[in-house]
Amino acid sequence: MNFSEQYELYHAHFEEYLQNRCAGMAFKPDILTESMRYSLLSGGKRVRPVLFFASLEAFGQAYRGEEALAFAIECIHTYSLIHDDLPAMDNDDFRRGKPSSHKAFGEANAILAGDALLSYAFDIALGECMRGERYIRAAQALSAAAGAAGMVAGQSLDLLCTGKGGGERELLQLWRDKTGRLIAAPVVMAALLAGKYADEAEQFGLALGTLFQITDDILDAVGSRNTLGKSVGKDAREQKLTAVSVYGLEGAEKQADRYACKCKELLHTMAGADIAFLEKLVEYVRRRDR
Amino acid sequence: MNFSEQYELYHAHFEEYLQNRCAGMAFKPDILTESMRYSLLSGGKRVRPVLFFASLEAFGQAYRGEEALAFAIECIHTYSLIHDDLPAMDNDDFRRGKPSSHKAFGEANAILAGDALLSYAFDIALGECMRGERYIRAAQALSAAAGAAGMVAGQSLDLLCTGKGGGERELLQLWRDKTGRLIAAPVVMAALLAGKYADEAEQFGLALGTLFQITDDILDAVGSRNTLGKSVGKDAREQKLTAVSVYGLEGAEKQADRYACKCKELLHTMAGADIAFLEKLVEYVRRRDR
Repeated sequence: MNFSEQYELYHAHFEEYLQNRCAGMAFKPDILTESMRYSLLSGGKRVRPVLFFASLEAFGQAYRGEEALAFAIECIHTYSLIHDDLPAMDNDDFRRGKPSSHKAFGEANAILAGDALLSYAFDIALGECMRGERYIRAAQALSAAAGAAGMVAGQSLDLLCTGKGGGERELLQLWRDKTGRLIAAPVVMAALLAGKYADEAEQFGLALGTLFQITDDILDAVGSRNTLGKSVGKDAREQKLTAVSVYGLEGAEKQADRYACKCKELLHTMAGADIAFLEKLVEYVRRRDR
Repeated sequence: MNFSEQYELYHAHFEEYLQNRCAGMAFKPDILTESMRYSLLSGGKRVRPVLFFASLEAFGQAYRGEEALAFAIECIHTYSLIHDDLPAMDNDDFRRGKPSSHKAFGEANAILAGDALLSYAFDIALGECMRGERYIRAAQALSAAAGAAGMVAGQSLDLLCTGKGGGERELLQLWRDKTGRLIAAPVVMAALLAGKYADEAEQFGLALGTLFQITDDILDAVGSRNTLGKSVGKDAREQKLTAVSVYGLEGAEKQADRYACKCKELLHTMAGADIAFLEKLVEYVRRRDR
């Protein structure tokens, strides 16, 4: 099986689970369920769930039977996009080629959809905790990555730097917290479930998250709305702190190459892990949407 | 010890723990920690933590050593107030006599402070899960009460009914979800930790939550900003669905009396529990701020 086929296998497996979970949702009032579903089912490459499944296999664990935690991760990612798009935050009217949540349901409902998805993620993660200590540790890793010591800190720093510049030091922190932590989470969680590679997994995941954010910054500068499905060129207009604002476009490409190399080096520190797919995933993130 | 002294004992114990936790917070950027602290430390009667401690003692458990879960509950309550006050939601400029979070820190930072507190609550609850299955169940109860099957559903219904009327049926649902679930949570969590009274605790907690919301509705109609520390008379102006809008002021007072009686009856179903303080707490909620 080549990389694309394997990606599609993980992706389809997650998508089927997601569809079933969404079909079974019956929160009242209906608009709450609709708004949660709308954002969960708006497509996307499902990088985090795929990364979770692939990491489990790389570390010698079965990924079938671990769909709930993949779903919890995706719920947190989805909540973060909804709140990030709000008028008071990035004020983005489009997400994945569709109107963003606050455009489709109004601002108040979008705030609540995000709150609901964040709570739901922990509901699901806590539901796995009875399976044993490894699951508790995995849920803790997710919580740490999402919260005030992780992604929310990144969003806060992003706000603080917007329009005010900032240098390489702030950029490194932004990469790590805003994107890195929640990309690293599935790899770290898989390592915790497997009972090995926890430190290496975190280092690799953070580097991959940084690579992801750099390519995001590059795509915002050069991409078009059609291929990206969201507004582009906004970073520069809004004076965001990005890889492109600090290094220029060419410099950002070099940084991306550097982090892609770093990712692969870090993969090789996991002696005995089956890293073939993850290595190709690094290339996929490096070249996505180009 | 009389009721007030006992309340003050629980209150002071929680407040000391809270102050220490807040002093130890060092999330970056600083504004994130400041905004979380600002709302956590803005006073309030700490009804939920007091109810948690009192329920533990009523059910034969020590409350010392269980401060973390009390703090997690208060974090969720605090996040809900921050998001509830946002311009897109209830648009309240004052909370507990101080500018609300979005007035003090701006809207984007207020959204993030709420997101951070919600994540933090689960971080703390997950930190207790290693203590055993009872703690996992208690954390699950908190999560269920906070999320799309609980408080967030109540907020969503509140939005839906505002300006559009609604009758007794919607009001009962609103009482239960918007307020009841998170007032019931500490009682249910205490019962789960004690390993008894779980069903009775939920019934009592939901009735107490309803009583709490009815008195809130009455206070909004008759109170003044000075005693309440927040904007008043807003419910009527904004055509909120409340006990007063459905039953009138006199009818709402009767409903409050009815629920206060119901609370006490439900307390007596818990054979062997030491309900003396909780009975007086019912009276305290019935008469608060009058």
